[in-house]
Amino acid sequence: MHSFEELSELFKEKFEVAHFPAEPATLYNPNNYFLSIGGKRVRPVMCLMGNELFGDIIPDCYQVATAIELFHNFTLIHDDIMDKAPLRRGMQTVHEKYDASTALLAGDVMLVRAYDYLNNIKTIYIHRILHLFNKTAKEVCEGQQLDMDFEKQEQVSMEQYLKMIELKTSVSLAASLQSGAILGGAGEGNQRHLYEFGRNLGIAFQVQDDYLDAFGDPEKFGKKPGGDIMANKKTFLMIHALETAPAAQKKLLLQLMRENPSDKVARVVAILKDCGVDKWAVDLKEKYTNIAFMHLEDIAVMDKRKRPLKELAAFLVKREH
Amino acid sequence: MHSFEELSELFKEKFEVAHFPAEPATLYNPNNYFLSIGGKRVRPVMCLMGNELFGDIIPDCYQVATAIELFHNFTLIHDDIMDKAPLRRGMQTVHEKYDASTALLAGDVMLVRAYDYLNNIKTIYIHRILHLFNKTAKEVCEGQQLDMDFEKQEQVSMEQYLKMIELKTSVSLAASLQSGAILGGAGEGNQRHLYEFGRNLGIAFQVQDDYLDAFGDPEKFGKKPGGDIMANKKTFLMIHALETAPAAQKKLLLQLMRENPSDKVARVVAILKDCGVDKWAVDLKEKYTNIAFMHLEDIAVMDKRKRPLKELAAFLVKREH
Repeated sequence: MHSFEELSELFKEKFEVAHFPAEPATLYNPNNYFLSIGGKRVRPVMCLMGNELFGDIIPDCYQVATAIELFHNFTLIHDDIMDKAPLRRGMQTVHEKYDASTALLAGDVMLVRAYDYLNNIKTIYIHRILHLFNKTAKEVCEGQQLDMDFEKQEQVSMEQYLKMIELKTSVSLAASLQSGAILGGAGEGNQRHLYEFGRNLGIAFQVQDDYLDAFGDPEKFGKKPGGDIMANKKTFLMIHALETAPAAQKKLLLQLMRENPSDKVARVVAILKDCGVDKWAVDLKEKYTNIAFMHLEDIAVMDKRKRPLKELAAFLVKREH
Repeated sequence: MHSFEELSELFKEKFEVAHFPAEPATLYNPNNYFLSIGGKRVRPVMCLMGNELFGDIIPDCYQVATAIELFHNFTLIHDDIMDKAPLRRGMQTVHEKYDASTALLAGDVMLVRAYDYLNNIKTIYIHRILHLFNKTAKEVCEGQQLDMDFEKQEQVSMEQYLKMIELKTSVSLAASLQSGAILGGAGEGNQRHLYEFGRNLGIAFQVQDDYLDAFGDPEKFGKKPGGDIMANKKTFLMIHALETAPAAQKKLLLQLMRENPSDKVARVVAILKDCGVDKWAVDLKEKYTNIAFMHLEDIAVMDKRKRPLKELAAFLVKREH
């Protein structure tokens, strides 16, 4: 059994190899650059944890974990194009450092490379792993599409937002865990509970993300808070506020969103606090965390094997950055 | 045994199903639109032909053929974004009808869907088919990258251009045939010859494509000829002309490329003819066609089974449109 941190180290070591050939450098250098700027590697570690919950980690698990991480990086490269994001983890995005066409194609070939790693695993696993991988990949694309659609929509309901977050963020965490479980020989019931653990944890993670943008400690947060508020992003907080705030405060919120005054962030945060949205968000996060833990409880393995997953939950949901 | 046309009909019928769910429509409608504008479906038919060269077409072959066609459409959607092409087969491209982000994501999910179909095939084939599919997919991306690189390059050698064409066009034709051969139970030697048949035929096909742009009969060609010349595209013809034309004519060609006069196409075509580039191109096309046919000869099956492949070659290389 390994701790969350030990597995992170283990994976990072294995992942530090050349994933692409040298030529054409104009295609592969951008991918090497993007992988070199790092990341938390949460998903591949979750894949390893899913395996180790049921037994020793098998070599195939590193192949699947690598595929999952490459897939994640593919989505980031393409999302950054769509979002016109200049920075990722404080570094230039691929389309910014090179150009949009290069980033598009580099992302494409990153996705194909992910399938290379999946094709390295034993035949007995391949259909199930590919099925889960493809299903999740499509869902992540659907989530990104909904996210873009919502930007053009005036109103987004809580139900719609939750569905989008589930697709864009949660299912990939859930599927990472389940992939490991498949390789660990878990039965279908256990797989389902582990998936639900990941899915609910993913929602709690996003609630925390939205919460930190508004209420995070700037020193711990690492990036300037209020970015979502500045961009009028529909988040758990804003959607709840607009759905539940008294008429006067709702009017003020909409006015601030329209007029973008220089003190917008501070004033929106004050209204959110006034309406108790901060406490509501903490409760919501706890609600999903609790559902996640109930599913973890229901997995039929010795309790001590679940320790790393509890560490993971703490890392994802209690983080202040 | 089926003729090329019969196989086209067979595939088109099978392919006319819903490949995507209804929702989110903003993601999947663009893909349904793009598939509805049709296409020659050459690659999937080549997959069926590769199978039938060695035996009856097995059901898995339609799965692989579908994956190949979806992959091809994914590359077209993304290439059109990169090339800023407004039209494809006379219809609006996806990024033009919707927007670039939608086209990007629709392409992504089209590629994932291709892998869904690959995952439907029997376990005994999956590793080999996936390996060939992934290898080819990466090569196609590399070819597109080289094509973009060449646009920024002042000089492109014949060797470089040939490599690009091989990657961007030929290998996908070759791999389509070989995929069918794998499913047909062909031995490795036969597979290799069939692949080489497709690869060389693909090069001949591109020579013909470049030839038609300059020398095609406008009435049969279907699109306005001279597009490559207008855009100063490095083609087989232009590269050869610049490498071999006498100094005076080379100077004139470069001047025309720089100055873009209104009668540029006619004047460039005249110079190309003057230098015998038209005859050279016909010879070059025949050279690659002949190599292709030598490989077809070497495939150890009854001669009559090769008839549809000969029809295919005639269709691809002798076409005037």
